[in-house]
This record gives sequence, C-alpha cells and structure tokens, in this order.
Amino acid sequence: MRTHYCGLVDETLIGQTVTLAGWTDVARNLGGVCFIDLRDHEGIVQVTVEPDNAEAFAVAASLGYEDVIQVEGVVRARHAVNEKIRTGKVEVIASRITVLNKAAPLPFHAHENPGEDIRLKYRYLDLRRPEMQRMQRTRIRLVQALRRWLDARGFQDIETPILTKATPEGARDFLVPARMHPGEFYALPQSPQLFKQILMIAGFDRYYQVARCFRDEALRADRQLEFTQLDMEFAFVRERDVQDTVEAMIRDVFREVIGVELADPFPRMTWAEAMRRYGSDKPDLRNPLELVDVAELVKDCGFAVFSGAANDPKGRVVALRIPGGASLSRKQIDEYAAHAAKFGAKGLAYARIDGNGAVNSPIAKFFAEDAFAALLAHVGADKGDIVFFGAGPYNRTSEFMGAVRLKAGRDFGLVEEGWRPLWVTDFPMFEWDEEEQRYVALHHPFTAPAVDDIEQLRADPASAVSRGYDMVLNGNEIGGGSIRIHRPEMQSAVFELLGIGAEEAQAKFGFLLDALKYGAPPHGGIAFGIDRIAALMAGTDSIRDVIPFPKTTTAQCLMTGAPSPVPDEQLAEVHVRVREESLQK
Amino acid sequence: MRTHYCGLVDETLIGQTVTLAGWTDVARNLGGVCFIDLRDHEGIVQVTVEPDNAEAFAVAASLGYEDVIQVEGVVRARHAVNEKIRTGKVEVIASRITVLNKAAPLPFHAHENPGEDIRLKYRYLDLRRPEMQRMQRTRIRLVQALRRWLDARGFQDIETPILTKATPEGARDFLVPARMHPGEFYALPQSPQLFKQILMIAGFDRYYQVARCFRDEALRADRQLEFTQLDMEFAFVRERDVQDTVEAMIRDVFREVIGVELADPFPRMTWAEAMRRYGSDKPDLRNPLELVDVAELVKDCGFAVFSGAANDPKGRVVALRIPGGASLSRKQIDEYAAHAAKFGAKGLAYARIDGNGAVNSPIAKFFAEDAFAALLAHVGADKGDIVFFGAGPYNRTSEFMGAVRLKAGRDFGLVEEGWRPLWVTDFPMFEWDEEEQRYVALHHPFTAPAVDDIEQLRADPASAVSRGYDMVLNGNEIGGGSIRIHRPEMQSAVFELLGIGAEEAQAKFGFLLDALKYGAPPHGGIAFGIDRIAALMAGTDSIRDVIPFPKTTTAQCLMTGAPSPVPDEQLAEVHVRVREESLQK
Repeated sequence: MRTHYCGLVDETLIGQTVTLAGWTDVARNLGGVCFIDLRDHEGIVQVTVEPDNAEAFAVAASLGYEDVIQVEGVVRARHAVNEKIRTGKVEVIASRITVLNKAAPLPFHAHENPGEDIRLKYRYLDLRRPEMQRMQRTRIRLVQALRRWLDARGFQDIETPILTKATPEGARDFLVPARMHPGEFYALPQSPQLFKQILMIAGFDRYYQVARCFRDEALRADRQLEFTQLDMEFAFVRERDVQDTVEAMIRDVFREVIGVELADPFPRMTWAEAMRRYGSDKPDLRNPLELVDVAELVKDCGFAVFSGAANDPKGRVVALRIPGGASLSRKQIDEYAAHAAKFGAKGLAYARIDGNGAVNSPIAKFFAEDAFAALLAHVGADKGDIVFFGAGPYNRTSEFMGAVRLKAGRDFGLVEEGWRPLWVTDFPMFEWDEEEQRYVALHHPFTAPAVDDIEQLRADPASAVSRGYDMVLNGNEIGGGSIRIHRPEMQSAVFELLGIGAEEAQAKFGFLLDALKYGAPPHGGIAFGIDRIAALMAGTDSIRDVIPFPKTTTAQCLMTGAPSPVPDEQLAEVHVRVREESLQK
Repeated sequence: MRTHYCGLVDETLIGQTVTLAGWTDVARNLGGVCFIDLRDHEGIVQVTVEPDNAEAFAVAASLGYEDVIQVEGVVRARHAVNEKIRTGKVEVIASRITVLNKAAPLPFHAHENPGEDIRLKYRYLDLRRPEMQRMQRTRIRLVQALRRWLDARGFQDIETPILTKATPEGARDFLVPARMHPGEFYALPQSPQLFKQILMIAGFDRYYQVARCFRDEALRADRQLEFTQLDMEFAFVRERDVQDTVEAMIRDVFREVIGVELADPFPRMTWAEAMRRYGSDKPDLRNPLELVDVAELVKDCGFAVFSGAANDPKGRVVALRIPGGASLSRKQIDEYAAHAAKFGAKGLAYARIDGNGAVNSPIAKFFAEDAFAALLAHVGADKGDIVFFGAGPYNRTSEFMGAVRLKAGRDFGLVEEGWRPLWVTDFPMFEWDEEEQRYVALHHPFTAPAVDDIEQLRADPASAVSRGYDMVLNGNEIGGGSIRIHRPEMQSAVFELLGIGAEEAQAKFGFLLDALKYGAPPHGGIAFGIDRIAALMAGTDSIRDVIPFPKTTTAQCLMTGAPSPVPDEQLAEVHVRVREESLQK
C-alpha cells in the first residue's frame, strides 16, 4: 500500500515517484494550493496538491483531521525548508489521493490535553501523539535491549504460569474461579518467585523472564494492578555474582537506550547507613541533604520527646539542616509538619536562623543557651538556614525525616540533575509487626539470612541481617533481589519465625519445601520494575505514560470498560455468585 | 562458586585447576577409586577421587543421587575415552569436594518413567532429564529466534493487558472478581485481538507480542488453559504483505533453530480445494492420499445415501483409495467406520479389490456391474486396494473422510518424512450454526470479507469468502490470521449478520466501533501457536513437553496444587461466594 514511510522521505528521493499512506495531521488550503501534513509512525511529510490536478485537489480539499489516506506523488525539493522536521527539505507533489478511511470529528485534538480520563478513554487517539509514541518506544527499546543483553550471555527466557496457586507474599491475590473444580480458585502470580526458584532446582542455571505480575492492592499513582518485571535467577551464585552481572546490564542498557553513562561501579550502602544518612532504604543521592544524629546532644534537655527518644536504645533524634530554609513562613513550616505526619511524625520541631543569626525555635526554651547553640553548630546550621528535628522510634523517625528531606530537596531546588544509582544491602531479615504481633519478612520469606546457622538466627531474629539487596536509582527502587534459602531446614525455620506453622507451610509452600529436599543448588536473583525504569528513561513521573493500556487509580480500563458486570449464568458456570451484601453497600 | 561448567570441560583445560558445581548424577566406587558423574545444564564430566585424598574420598563415598556438590580439581586426559559425551576425553582429579546440599532419596530416577502425573508433581526432577532440557531449550531458542527476526525488521514488542474486559470470541472467559468494583469482573484475554487492532489505529504500524492467552475450554491432549502465541499485526497491508513476511520469518526460524529448509514459497490452497482434496482445512501434505469426488458417477445408483447426496447441491459423495488396503480385516474396517463416526459419519461404505481383482463391497449390489467398475476405475482402484466412500452434507462428509485419510496414512505408513507447510486461504466468512440457528464467524467477527460492498455481503452471506488465512504445517494449523475490517459500517454489518444486535455490539465492542470511526488504517495480522510449533520442532506430540509448568487435562497443576480452595474471608473481599449447589453436585 506504500513504497516509503512518510517520516523517512528525504532528499535522496527527489525526482522519484512514491506512494505513501498515513493520517491527515492537518490539511490547509493556502492561496489556492492544498497542503497536507501526512503523518505515520516515522513522522510527517508535506504533501502538496496543486489546483491543476482537479481530482486530487477535490479530495484534498475535503480532508478532515485524521482521515486515513494514500498518496501517490513525486518528491520535490522544497522552497521553504522546515528545519523542525526530518523531511523538511522535501515535499511530495500529489498525483493521486485515495481516502482509505474517513475520520469522524475527534473528541479532542492532538495539541489539547482534555484530562487523563478522556485521554484514557480514547487511548488510541492519545497514543498517536508523537510524545506518547516516543515514550512507548523508549519502553520497547528498553525491553529489547535487556533481552538482547541477556540472550547474548546465555540467560534462558522461560515462561511461568499465570494461572497458579495462591502464594501470599504480602499483597492480596487476584482469584480466578476454576470451572472444572467447584469451589476452587487459581490465583494470578504476584511474581514468578517460587517458579524461578523451582527452575534453578530443575537445573536451568540462568533464567530470565519479562513477566507480568499482579497485585490486588490499593492503587497509588505509581502502581498498577498488573505490572511488568524483568525477573532473573541464577544458580550457584553469591550476592556479588548477581549484583555485578545486573549492574553491568543496567549500565549497558542505559547507555544504549538513552545515552546515559551510569557510575562504574555503583556506590554501595548498607540499609543501616541509608536509613541513618537519608532516612530511606531507597535514597535519592541527587539530593545533597543528609540527616544528622543528635541524640548525644539532647539526652539531658528538658524536652521529653527528645530526651526520651535519645535515651531509648530503639529511639532516634535526628536533625535536618536546610540551607536557605529560614525563608519558610509559619504556614510553610506547618506544611512540612503535615507532610512529616503523613509518614508517622507526631510533631516536627524546628529552628530558624535568620540573616542576623537570631534563632527562632519553639524548642529552644528546653535547652541551656549554649547547649542549643552547640546543637545547631553540630548540624552546621548557619545564617538563613532552618533545621528540622525529629524524634521517636528509630525507623519511623528516620522515615518521616527522610520524607522531609525529599520535600525540602524539591522545594528548594536542591536536587541535582543526573543519574545516581546505588546498591542498598544488608537489610534486616525481619521487621516486627506491631499490629500482628509477629515478625514479617522485609524482602520475602524465601530470602536467605546472612548466618548459615539456624540456632544463631533463632537466638536474635530482630538483629538478623538478610542477603537481600536493592538497586536504587534517583530515589526509586528499580530492582530488588536476594540470595535465597536453599536448605529445607532453614526455610522451615524462617517460616516458623514468621509465625507460619508447619501445617500452613506445608499447605502453602509444600512443593517448595519438597523441591529444596531433592538437591537444590545455592541460588539467588533479582527482579527489575520495567514500568518504573521505562518511566525514568522516558522522563515522565507516571508509569501510565509507558504502559500502552493502563488502568486508572480506581482499577478501571476506561477504554474497554473493564471491569464489568457478568451475566449470572456465566458466574454459575464457574460456581460463584456475587454477594448480596457487597451490592447493598 | 565455579570456574567452568561441567559439560564444557575439555582437552584445552588439561593440567589446569578448575572449580565445578553441579549434581551427582551417579557416584560409584570401582576398585577403590571413586568416580562421580557430575552434571550441570551443559552436561556431565567425570570426577575421579583417589583414595590417597582421604578427606575428599570420604565425602565422595557418602554421595547419593542428586546431591549438590562443589569440586575443585585438576583436569587430566582420560585413559578410557568416552565418545558418548562431550567431556569424554578428560576427567577431573578432585582435590576437594564440598557438599552444598544433600538430596533426600528421590521419588523416581532419571531413567525411569513413573507416569505423567508423578512427573508433573515433581516437575523439577523431570525437567533435569537431558531430554526435557533439550525440548525446553528448543522452545527457548524458537522464541529467541522469532524475536530477533522481528526486532531486526522494526516490529515493536508491545504489551497488552491480562486483566481486561470479557470479549467473547467463541470460547469461555476466565473471570477475575474486581475487589474495588463489587459485582464486576475482569476477564483474561482469549487473545490480544482487539488490543492489537487498537494499536494499529493508534499508529503503531508493526506490532508483535509473545502473548499469553487464556481459554476456559475442555482440555484436550493438545490444549492448555493458558497458551502462548506470537501475536502480530500490520497497518496498511493486504494479505500478501502479511503472508510473505511471516512465511519468510518461519522459514528463517526453522533453518536457524532446527536446521530445516522449508519450501520457498509455501504452496497455497484455497479452503475449498483443501476440503475437496484432503477433507480438512489443515491438510497434512506428507500424506499422499487424496479424496476423489464421485457424485457424477453415483447420481443414479440404487443406494439412496449416495444418490441423495449426489443430487443435493449441498451434498458430497467422495471416495478414498488406499493402496494395499485390501489387507484390512472386517474388524479393521469396522474400526475405520467407528473412527469416521466420531467425525459425524453415519456410515462408511467400502470396496475391497483382492489380489485377483475380485471386488468385495456391500454396496456393489446397488450398481449396475459396469457402473461400479467405472466408479472404481475413476478412483484408480487396483488389485490389493480398498476404497472407502463417504456421502452426506458437504462439510461433514469432507471432514470424516479427511479423518479416514489421516488414519489410513498412519496405519499404512504412507506419511512421508519431512516438513510440508502451506497456506490455506479464502475461507468462508460464515458458518451456519444449526444448533443456534444463526451464522457464526469461521475466523472471528473482526475478519474482513473479500467484498468491500456491504449490500453484496448481506445478499448472500453463506457464500461470502473472508480475507482470513491459515499457515498449516504437517497437518497442524500453526498460524491463523486475516485482514481485519477497518470501516465501522462494515464491522456493524458483520455483527448484525452474526446476530449481534446494535445494543449488544455497543456494550461489548463499543470501543472498537468508536476506534474504527476515528481514522483506522487498513490492517491485518496473524497469530502463531508457540507451544505447537515448539512441540513440532522438538519432535514431541505433546505440547506439555515444551511448557515448563503445564496443567493436566483436568486443569490442575500437580506440582503447586492449583486450583485450591480459598478461605471465605478472601472471597468476601472480592464480593463473591461459592455456590452451594455447585458443591453439592
């Protein structure tokens, strides 16, 4: 139907007859000559229709936005060169124009932004916009580059089931009623975790998969019901084997896809250091602000919140100095407090140092004058700065101060340009869940502890360190992995510590425990969030921009109308009915 | 953990110290020396442990099947070369052996076949067998080769949703209750059909995806609940653009993956010819037998079944000559009749011609002697042959005679070696469904008819030909596709002819009808069955051999135990309950 792509017509074709096909980006009659901007996936070329070609001219004059046409014509050098487009030095003098499909008046035009809901409803129109095409292409090129890299190194792309067994890893499963087994359900995988471990036990050595994963969680701006991860697993490895390999991969792929040179090697940081300095397990190193511990300086102050936390071995008192932050108004300071509260802060103390060095701080009164001065000096506070203080339990305090750090970085334009990857390692093995009064796994229950000895692990689970690791880029956890448990006794012990009894473990993970018994090699792996990496590469905050058909934060596809009601007969076939009480709510 | 792979240790390493890791395929004490066959994914190498290395010898002597070990040692030339394995010219003299993980006594051994259920339950053990590794690798290489081919030609690998809307295309949908929308359901896609069409409308030009598809159908030997297809779509194309491209792709990939040279070009056959000559829309051309129409010769015979069908314009009377078939016993002939009956035959007439030319046929009596001789002569029947006859409605008769043809080909060893691809084209647009008393789409409702004119299509739907095409290989439909409808009026007309009212069409496919309105390019595509192609390449009849974790014909995963019951609280969260009446059955 065409000899060339519109966006690739160039000077080398001058004098040749070409056939093009595409969309009418715009058609204008200027001084009796018709100009059509004809668009395809490669770009736009100008088609010129002269009035002496009456038939073609009549067709051209009738064209509306997005009409799909076929054009035959001769390529000619253009008088007025358009430097903005690749084809700007030429035009095509149409000899024949055929309308392949008319377009009805559009619900919105390419240069408009009618709001995300309308864009998602007419996703096919939105995706035609060059900016959306560019972002989708970035994703396509990312995945292609990753696959090529892995294929060249002997990794094997192996598919794992989508209809599988509920294997709770923290999030809620999507359930699929089984028609052939009344009252039973398949679950969609939250990740191929157990299958990839089984593959190592089955002797596959180096596995990868660009895998669809499913989590029925409340949707945040950066989450989708289904998401894509590059899932990898290696047999007979230690941490550095995995890390060094995938670090090289990420570096090569960033260079290839967006021409960015990442640090070599990536900096490494323990979880403890990341929490201490940045109040986050995924620190954005582009933000130069750092937390400073001040417990030693506030142990004896009169402010019980500070002294209490400072004297508690599980507590933390920490300061964050923001250069130039004295310009914050009371209202803005309140906004910081509110932001910190979202992350669990009970309050956010501060000290403003004005241009003359005068200190304004609601907590100064709790300190001897020189003690407060010493405190401010310890954090390096200077004229024009503000210092925020947080106190309370170690992790929570670190996290809300980490959130304050990020907000300050943005608000004060402190975040540097560029790409700052790092490894975060040595995560705690367990976290104590106050609500459930039990330990939960910080990574997942299959992550190996740093100690090989089961008794040693049991003796002090709270301070056990895992063999997990995260790859962090500009404040995003783009990859997370671990060395896995490969001995069945250790796996049983960890289940037990997590409050999963032997019976429950057998019911849920019996096949894994079995498999570990029959000759499981040491193994480990990692999974990368493709949607997030693509969004970072494409320069967008929203992963929805790099997912061809995303769902809304209310879990709907506005284009197809999913989810939707289903006739009762269809539900009867799969042995379920809708709960009356759910509909009455 | 290792310096080399076991299966790759060769003469170039003689004298070097290597570290290997893998599974104990077998360990034997022969004359006071221990020999370990150490296995990894690359193969087996012999590790020799001499008694003077007391520590290593003690470990070696304790090894059981499938124990995972690490071996350090020096590569040495072997006295007794083993030509059967790649590493057969060398052995590794162990200096140190470390047990990485003991294996419990195995439920079965590699050389046993404990039955498919046990193999599936312990899939990780089954997959360790070299034959299974080989078949999985064939699949991996197939997909890799396809991707590389497509990537090199500018096809874009684009993901479409798994959680989507019920879009009935003939089969039953899997349903997923939507937690955030009580009483509503997502459906798993039967194929990405509508999404890929939408992608063309969105301007993506050349799409592919290795896509997981889901059909909740009764499982036959060659079906799975979920299966994988190479899904492709092209904008601005006609049939030959698609066919020529993918034919070249399949040819290149067969050459690359299994070194087979397929015909160039593939033979082409209309659906009508395929039914006429082979009684199948996916003829196995390796089978030389062909059907012969004999209606003209039986119109006036006394056998009403024949003469009735011969005089019915929708009927067919057809003969199949099987050289050497006179050797069939009465019992064997009955088996042929029973086989034909499975495909709808009411009876299967025959004529046996013995070595002396004597004819034995229950239907001979309905013919004048010379008329019957003329009939046999027409089909080329000779001494020692049998001729089967079928009569009845055209399609049904063709199909059961096609089934007889396939059985005869197998039974008489007539099927030639090799690879016989072809294109089948010009399918009927619609099939009349007697049960539902309406037309159904032979491909799917989005397939374009050969005529552009809606009135012409409406005038005689029964004889309308579609723009669908199938790629057939050795009797398997390995790919199916079509040029799609790109004009909304035609799509509405086809829905109407299929008995899908305007309201239903809008509810189910409104987004497609909308999208067609806003500038849809002419487009078409195809989808290939990856599981089937991989099975053909791997030389196995069962697609389960090339799926890492297949389900049984009763839709279960014997390894994980999916599907399984789910606590009622979990069902309550997604607003469904199990029907009591289903459980009571």
